[in-house]
Order: sequence, then structure tokens, then C-alpha cells
Amino acid sequence: MQIEFLGTGSGVPGKFRNVSCTALRLLDECNSVWLFDVGEGTQQQILRSNLKPRKINKIFITHLHGDHIFGLPGLLSSRSFQGGNTPLTIYGPKGIKDFVQVSLGVSKTKLSYKIIYQELTTPGKIFEDPKFTVYMNTLDHQIESFGYRVEEHDHPGELMVDKLKAAKIPSGPIYGRIKAGESVQLDDGRVINGADFIGKAQKGRVVAILGDTRKNPNSLSLAKNADVLVHESTFSKDEAGLARNYYHSTNAQAAILAKKANVHKLLLTHISSRYTGKMANVLQKQARAIFKNTSVVRDFDVVDVPFDKNQTV
Amino acid sequence: MQIEFLGTGSGVPGKFRNVSCTALRLLDECNSVWLFDVGEGTQQQILRSNLKPRKINKIFITHLHGDHIFGLPGLLSSRSFQGGNTPLTIYGPKGIKDFVQVSLGVSKTKLSYKIIYQELTTPGKIFEDPKFTVYMNTLDHQIESFGYRVEEHDHPGELMVDKLKAAKIPSGPIYGRIKAGESVQLDDGRVINGADFIGKAQKGRVVAILGDTRKNPNSLSLAKNADVLVHESTFSKDEAGLARNYYHSTNAQAAILAKKANVHKLLLTHISSRYTGKMANVLQKQARAIFKNTSVVRDFDVVDVPFDKNQTV
Ligand SMILES: [Zn+2]
Ligand SMILES: [Zn+2]
Repeated sequence: MQIEFLGTGSGVPGKFRNVSCTALRLLDECNSVWLFDVGEGTQQQILRSNLKPRKINKIFITHLHGDHIFGLPGLLSSRSFQGGNTPLTIYGPKGIKDFVQVSLGVSKTKLSYKIIYQELTTPGKIFEDPKFTVYMNTLDHQIESFGYRVEEHDHPGELMVDKLKAAKIPSGPIYGRIKAGESVQLDDGRVINGADFIGKAQKGRVVAILGDTRKNPNSLSLAKNADVLVHESTFSKDEAGLARNYYHSTNAQAAILAKKANVHKLLLTHISSRYTGKMANVLQKQARAIFKNTSVVRDFDVVDVPFDKNQTV
Repeated sequence: MQIEFLGTGSGVPGKFRNVSCTALRLLDECNSVWLFDVGEGTQQQILRSNLKPRKINKIFITHLHGDHIFGLPGLLSSRSFQGGNTPLTIYGPKGIKDFVQVSLGVSKTKLSYKIIYQELTTPGKIFEDPKFTVYMNTLDHQIESFGYRVEEHDHPGELMVDKLKAAKIPSGPIYGRIKAGESVQLDDGRVINGADFIGKAQKGRVVAILGDTRKNPNSLSLAKNADVLVHESTFSKDEAGLARNYYHSTNAQAAILAKKANVHKLLLTHISSRYTGKMANVLQKQARAIFKNTSVVRDFDVVDVPFDKNQTV
């Protein structure tokens, strides 16, 4: 599990930061990539990364501002052109379906795969499969804006096959009962405890990716105890007034949230072009004074989300 | 007058060629820039050029395929963000207005200027002002596709003020009559011929920019005697069958057209990513064997369109 930043700018593309797109790489977990927002030029950024468009099977849109959605029709077309033929689900605010359908319709684009639209209206669980659950909650932007929380399910401990073999326990249906943690009597009379042959369970990881927002109470529940929180940082510490007026956040507000929510790592994105080059370091430094494990990310940064070795279930 | 190529690729963006956009720079002529097609990422290409979005006051769309229009909503937004406040006219096939309005509507984009939509249905003159006339004619692509012909009006000869002064002809309302070519009697009795004091008239330039098309009869009238013909070249000489099936042209077909139409220069664009790097030279070489003054253009090429010194009116 890694997070790859394909567009870390704010509002309009700059020379160094494209408009918003964050990729959650789940290649080891389920051979897929999930995108959060698709600003214009996302498909060009993907060309410069090693992501394969056909592996993208979920797209989560945080809100409908142009810098977060105008790359969607082009990406969907290219995914088809490049051999994508598995269904793709788009989650987002009401209106996203109309935008995509009119764009593809006017341009007479025929896709080689099916799009499933999930226009979200109610906060809560929006997706669940055996490996992940995704939650949405609303934020506070001028238009409807969502934050997403991706929870990986805990990994149950693995059956310790080598240890079973060393104890001369013959393989067979009995392994299933041992894996289930049962106490089992063997043919030779021995009674063994399944739990002794199961490795440590591993706590699933949590990633919270929030859309544009000003300070609001829902962010806390989205971010609570997350391994990684991806948060906008359109303004700097001294610009809380501007942030409020424009429905955005400062780096300090994001850092305070990270601290309160007890996250492990804070990644700041949606950086204004007013903070070019070394100026972005100032944003990072100010935020680190509040929450140490903070980074201002750049386009094409890939951040690993490791298991927390100390957190077993 | 120059032509700047902002996207010379075909279908999907490649690492070296973005999707379609051609800019006609009319900065000396009328302090404006006209765009022909706006593929996704055009605003990012403009960032890397020295064009100013606010100077773009006309956009001509050749056809509605995604690689020719998906950059339009983002460019329109950025033009507003960057201080554009003068009206902008969009010419194109029926459907372009719906695409732009839904995109801007869904994203709640408020522009600081007015868009005038000219959905074209009838070939012929589509625009005229004191300096330029623009014509449209239909081509042969799978969907409606247009070619545009921009005719600069002839420049009348300039009044030779230095020569008038040397001949001791006093300035005054009489200069207007001289400029009009009249024969005038001066107060000192001399009769002078206005035509002797007017410089050479200069023939206006003609640029033809055609959308995606296969071989068709209308291209000839669009290109006739043009100073520059910009033509697609999706396939190579040996792929006429493919070109026909996919409603595109080969380099050879474009060159034959250039020759028949007696154009001065042929610029080949819409180059498939199958022709990377030096492979594009092959396209150029094949075309030059038919029409010598041919170039395969690349992203960011700027081609001057000079006055033809031999062609006075
Ligand atoms: Zn934004
Ligand atoms: Zn095309």
C-alpha cells in the first residue's frame, strides 16, 4: 500500500504542481489502484508514473470543482484505449454522472468497460469487500465536499505450516480446524491447541483522504487514528482568515487535526502556487512545529503506508 | 503572424506529443491569439509557452472527439482566473455549447467574461472583421469535422510621408485625398498623382487549418493557394487502407493535397505515437518526396507566416 501524488497543486495547474489527483496503490493487496480526484492532465501525469490506467477500478471524487474533475473524461477514454475492460466505479457528489455522461456523449466516446456511478448523499459506509471498508463524511467547502476513510481489514494470523511440520502433524482437513484456532486431538492421541500454530494477527491500515475544506468537526472522525492523513493546505498558518473566507484550510489547522486525531503521518497537498520551491518548506516547518510527522508532498512523490509493527489485533 | 503547436499528437497524449491544439498568434495583427482545438492539457502546455490565456479571444473547434475538446473547460477557467475579462467566441459543431455549459455548470465555475457560442451548421463565411475573414467547410471524419480557412485582408499601401515632405507638400486634409490615390492640385499650382505617394499594397496571408479527415473534395477549396496548410497525418504513405477505415489521412494524401492546392508550406500534425522520435522523420521524408516544403511539427514549434514579398495586390 502506497500513496502516489499525481497532482498536488491548488486551483489551477502550475509549472511544478498539477491540479488534484491522489492515487492509493493497492497492488499487493488487490492488484488495483484507486484514484481520489482527477484534475485535468491526470492521464499525462500517469504517463510519467508507472501506474497502469487499466488497474484503476475505483475513483473517488471529493467535490466537483474543475481542478478536481476536468481530467476524468480523458482518463476514462485512455483507460479504454489502453485495454481496460473491467468495470470501474466512480463515487462522488451528485452531478458527477451528468458531467461524465455529457462529456463522453458529446465526444461520441465508446468505452470498452462499464462505469458504475455511485452518487453519494448520505455519510457512512459506502463500500465494503473482504479486504477494505470505505467511509465518506461531508466537509465544509463552498460546494458539497467529501472526505474518504479507507480501512483495511485486519489480517488474521497465518497458519505456521513449518511449525506444524516440525511437530510432525500431518497435513489434511485438520489444518483448517487448527487455523480456526480449535483444540484438536490427533490420531496419535496428542491434543494440540490451534492458537499455538497461528502467527500474529496484523492490524489493518487506515488512510484518510480529505477533499477541500475549511476547519470542521467531521474531519476528526474521518482521520481518527489513521496511519496516514492526506489533507489540503491551501493557506499558511498566518492566513486563517483567508482560509475561512475561501473555504480552505491552513497548514496549522491540518496539523492540529492530525494531532487531535492521533494519526501517524500527515501529508499536506493542494499547495498554492504562491508557495513555490523553498517556500513550501516554510509550510512544512510551520506544520511540523505542531505535528512532527508532517510532509508537504510534491507531484510524483510515493509514500509507503507500512503496517504498524506494534499494533497487533 | 505565427502558428504555435501546443499539441501535435493523435488520439491519446504521449510522452512527447500532447493531444490537439494549434495556436494562431495574431499579436502584431490584432493583439490576439486564436486556438484551433483544445485537447486535455492545453492549459498546461500554454504554461510552458509564452502565450497569455487572456489574449485568446477565439477558439475554433474542428470536431468533438475528446482529444480535441477535453481541455476546454480547464482553459476557460484558467483564462478567468488569470484576469481574462474580454468576451471569447467558441466556434464548433453542434454539441460544443452543451459540453462547455455542463462542465462549467457542474463545477460551479463562474467566469469573469462572456462566452459567445457559434455552433456551425452551414459551410461558408463564419467571421469577418476589418482585418480577417474566416471560412468553414466540412470534412470527412466519422463525426462532423470542420476545416477552417483564415484569410487576412490585403494591406493597402502606406502613405509615403517622407516622400511627401521631401516634395514639400504641406500636411493637412489633402493627405487623405492623396492616400485615396486621387489626383490633387496644390495651392502652388502643382498637380500631383496620389498613386505616386502610396507604397506597395501587400497581399494578405492565408492559413488553412483542417480537422481530422480522410481524403475528401472540400479540403482543396479550403487549402487553395494558402500560405500555410496545417493538416493531420495520422498514418503513413503505405497505410491508405487504414486511413480510410479510421477516417484519417496519410502523409502522402496531405502532400498531394498541398501540391494540388498550390500552398506555400505544409505542416503535418496529429502524429500517431507509433511514430516516435526519428520515425517522424520518415513521415516527413515521404511527404517531401511529393511536396517539398513540408514539415512534421512537434509540440512547441513556432512557425512564422511571412508576407509573400512577390505577391503584391
Ligand atoms: Zn481544489
Ligand atoms: Zn484527433
